[in-house]
Amino acid sequence: MTEHRPSQAELAAFLQAEFPQNRCTLEELDADGSVVVAHPVGESELRPGGTVSGPVMMTLADVALYIAILARIGIVPLAVTTNLSINFLRKPRADRRVIARCRLMKLGKSLAVGEVWIFSEGEDEPVAHATGTYAVPPKR
Amino acid sequence: MTEHRPSQAELAAFLQAEFPQNRCTLEELDADGSVVVAHPVGESELRPGGTVSGPVMMTLADVALYIAILARIGIVPLAVTTNLSINFLRKPRADRRVIARCRLMKLGKSLAVGEVWIFSEGEDEPVAHATGTYAVPPKR
Amino acid sequence: MTEHRPSQAELAAFLQAEFPQNRCTLEELDADGSVVVAHPVGESELRPGGTVSGPVMMTLADVALYIAILARIGIVPLAVTTNLSINFLRKPRADRRVIARCRLMKLGKSLAVGEVWIFSEGEDEPVAHATGTYAVPPKR
Amino acid sequence: MTEHRPSQAELAAFLQAEFPQNRCTLEELDADGSVVVAHPVGESELRPGGTVSGPVMMTLADVALYIAILARIGIVPLAVTTNLSINFLRKPRADRRVIARCRLMKLGKSLAVGEVWIFSEGEDEPVAHATGTYAVPPKR
Repeated sequence: MTEHRPSQAELAAFLQAEFPQNRCTLEELDADGSVVVAHPVGESELRPGGTVSGPVMMTLADVALYIAILARIGIVPLAVTTNLSINFLRKPRADRRVIARCRLMKLGKSLAVGEVWIFSEGEDEPVAHATGTYAVPPKR
Repeated sequence: MTEHRPSQAELAAFLQAEFPQNRCTLEELDADGSVVVAHPVGESELRPGGTVSGPVMMTLADVALYIAILARIGIVPLAVTTNLSINFLRKPRADRRVIARCRLMKLGKSLAVGEVWIFSEGEDEPVAHATGTYAVPPKR
Repeated sequence: MTEHRPSQAELAAFLQAEFPQNRCTLEELDADGSVVVAHPVGESELRPGGTVSGPVMMTLADVALYIAILARIGIVPLAVTTNLSINFLRKPRADRRVIARCRLMKLGKSLAVGEVWIFSEGEDEPVAHATGTYAVPPKR
Repeated sequence: MTEHRPSQAELAAFLQAEFPQNRCTLEELDADGSVVVAHPVGESELRPGGTVSGPVMMTLADVALYIAILARIGIVPLAVTTNLSINFLRKPRADRRVIARCRLMKLGKSLAVGEVWIFSEGEDEPVAHATGTYAVPPKR
């Protein structure tokens, strides 16, 4: 593939322009193609029991996977999720951001598959793990 | 089990009180225990291409499953999702609410498993299908 | 699509010819495209505790999904599973066959998605539920 | 937990005694609790197109997860799979064993969750990735 690989700044700008209501931020873009995305945690992310809501972590996983794919194939907004599966492992901290690290397992002609580990910022043990598949546009 | 089974009004009130930032509404509570939950679709639910974002549908699936469980075991806020897997099937309409119908497949002593079908309101073909597992508090 | 839709006998013959070591049998092919596949249960399908082993049910789910797809797109052996997710719900009986009923949720140009319910023969409550995705060959 | 942690030889003997029809073999038991399990590949593991059948890889993933859990909690045959999700990434080689490496993500009081990477022996790129949940017996 000869696409332009976007820079971290380009991906961050795309994320903010196209998903203004989404509060995820791109924190890292590594040479191996893995990405780190963060989501703030405040009142609106917490649910009864003082834990971060599942949908916040699912959103974070989905966005991390999307950005990891765009980092490799170029900014083609038509990639769409076909499947996402998440396991919730531990209660996240209520006073820290949640951080997702995503790495692609496969980048094929029509499907990309990645895995995402989610942590409370600064903690060692993951709070969730997701895998997801995106359909990528055929002509690229 | 001898728990009080909450009414639709009680569940709707709980949903609004405990998850004020969540825009899901309980639409139906059927005698067989299945529930129907809706989410509005507007600018903040759409993503590039004019489609409802994946996280909106994941949120809807998670809430529908949660409400279906509470409808059966009583309002015990400590039930937590352990796993959620979703397949996105078709592009939802940009001008309709998304509607989830959830039915439990199993309600065990420690785990509840359910399935959720998601539709654009008024359409016949599902836009997504999810299955999820909740850990339910042991002493009930 | 103008493919020949294979008959139940043709699908059963294909299953036996191409997967001789596989003990699944096609039991029904319904007008709506759903299929019923069975697997015998004997000593070699049981695991400690007298329950049917998970891999037997995963095999059954995978074959049921495969046959349901071939029933719709014609016998094209190149369809391959991309994802399978299964929830085990109840202990199957040790003295009955396991029966899978599969229905497709989506049959797209490149992906087919289906769901499978598995029962001990003659019982009402499902023992497992699976969803799976197959990549289907592009030119058909 | 004060259980006896079984040795590799004890686990291998258990696997052979209790699952005689299962052809998986335990290859490694690492100090960090990860395990490596292999499955031979021959005529009966191949499907049309010369690829290793999905059910062989699902069996391998399930066994690897089971052994990784027993390695930590002791040999308690009553642990049962509640959920398994697998992504097939690449075509395995027809002339090599398939090898699974499993690591637990979480070992809780009632649930254990692990991930499994599957490779054709000697190859670098994974052919499949699975995550699974086991319910573990309460009093241990």
